[in-house]
Amino acid sequence: MPEAASAQATRAAIGDSEFDRDTALALRAPGVYDIDLSAGWTIINAVNGGYLLAVLGRALADALPHADPFTISAHYLTASQPGPAVVRTDVVRTGRTLSTGQASLFQYDEQGREVERIRVLASYGDLDALPDDVRTTAVPPEFPPMDQCFGPQDGPAPVSGSSAIADRLMIKIDPATLGWAVGAPSGKGEMRAWFGLADGRDADPLSLLLAVDALPPTAFELGLKGWVPTVELTVHVRSRPAPGPLRVSITTRNLAGGFLEEDAEVWDSNDRLVAQSRQLARVRLG
Amino acid sequence: MPEAASAQATRAAIGDSEFDRDTALALRAPGVYDIDLSAGWTIINAVNGGYLLAVLGRALADALPHADPFTISAHYLTASQPGPAVVRTDVVRTGRTLSTGQASLFQYDEQGREVERIRVLASYGDLDALPDDVRTTAVPPEFPPMDQCFGPQDGPAPVSGSSAIADRLMIKIDPATLGWAVGAPSGKGEMRAWFGLADGRDADPLSLLLAVDALPPTAFELGLKGWVPTVELTVHVRSRPAPGPLRVSITTRNLAGGFLEEDAEVWDSNDRLVAQSRQLARVRLG
Repeated sequence: MPEAASAQATRAAIGDSEFDRDTALALRAPGVYDIDLSAGWTIINAVNGGYLLAVLGRALADALPHADPFTISAHYLTASQPGPAVVRTDVVRTGRTLSTGQASLFQYDEQGREVERIRVLASYGDLDALPDDVRTTAVPPEFPPMDQCFGPQDGPAPVSGSSAIADRLMIKIDPATLGWAVGAPSGKGEMRAWFGLADGRDADPLSLLLAVDALPPTAFELGLKGWVPTVELTVHVRSRPAPGPLRVSITTRNLAGGFLEEDAEVWDSNDRLVAQSRQLARVRLG
Repeated sequence: MPEAASAQATRAAIGDSEFDRDTALALRAPGVYDIDLSAGWTIINAVNGGYLLAVLGRALADALPHADPFTISAHYLTASQPGPAVVRTDVVRTGRTLSTGQASLFQYDEQGREVERIRVLASYGDLDALPDDVRTTAVPPEFPPMDQCFGPQDGPAPVSGSSAIADRLMIKIDPATLGWAVGAPSGKGEMRAWFGLADGRDADPLSLLLAVDALPPTAFELGLKGWVPTVELTVHVRSRPAPGPLRVSITTRNLAGGFLEEDAEVWDSNDRLVAQSRQLARVRLG
């Protein structure tokens, strides 16, 4: 069998992939869902914030009459750990084209009491019902071909993702934003990478919630080291992504007062801007 | 008395201005506040979303142990009208440097039942406690001097704000983004204006929540007409603004599928980037 056909044959389908299994929720009661947060999406010692957002996004897709997150805002309260969690959802308003919901993810302390990890507010709709009109002035960022980009598997460079999540993702970073990995950060707040899931599952609106928060922080290219915890992350999903790898471009303009913003754009293989996000994160200034 | 000194003498102080009076809340019960939404901040037939966000932001500043909104995300559910409203707040988590809260604004239907207008999730801190470090790469946008910019008072052009809010604001729009007012929109998703309160009150973190949503929509320069209702608006307040007029720059990159984003930057008189915001809004495509 030719290699391309073989790769095709083994690609995980949407609904039957690591990402789908690790975001699957068990209905405990109306609007209440149990989940065992997978250790497969940890980075350093914490569970990745994009994976957690996808878990919450999936709960709301079930709880609301609309399935697609149009805009979802998350405030991160305490660091999540792999293990049992419960998601409690609340339908705020249902409308014809948009529905709004709220959800919180809790874990348990040593006494078994619930501790809130994240709270989100989101408005959902039906991406397939939107008009086809595209008048965007945005153009995709320049990307080198994927085989000229580098990921954790490509060498001895200390590319972020020495922890579990690296095995779940296909990330190929533009060398122009990889200076930090060889001790020569560019000083520009930019990070760009080809992005996919390692098992070949194509993107959908829920995996876009992961994509916007899965690259190494732009802070690395600004010469900062260490953890950059997210305070708040808002994602706008603007279109259902086409099959194939995504391009994720992240920029930071304003590093000041111990905080920075990260703006992400996600482009699909049809050159459509499928998601935009912004997060506020804390930095440790050296 | 020289004119400048006279103007100085009549400038409203923070805490004693139209904006402060119209966002003042009466404590009904712990965390619950009554307010009469002022008709002074309406645009066309609706109450301005930035004014409403400032009302909610002020309630949370009272309810939380921290006074300054660092990041506040609002989902707009139904259109607010001038008149009685109640704000219900909920303290989600209090921490040493950040506290997170939730708030909803309700009005009343004909049977006196509460109807939710807006729900917000926000993290508050103390701007004055942040380190002085500023490593931003962002630079202020080019602005013509204020006397070369135009507001509703400057002529027969149909500048937005023929309704009540125009009397409360000092808005002077960059002529480069004013083509729509003379029937010649630039086609670029840009809107820039000098911004202040008409009574001369200086900016503070709460009035920044108004500033990001007070200019005419970028959609006008994209050749669209009509109402552009906000679905979700998130504001990051990054620094306490210096006295003097603000510069507000709004850009839209992605107009597609009947939605667009508006990204606002607010710069103070010290050339400090004091706020960043993004909103998702609906558009009617012609």
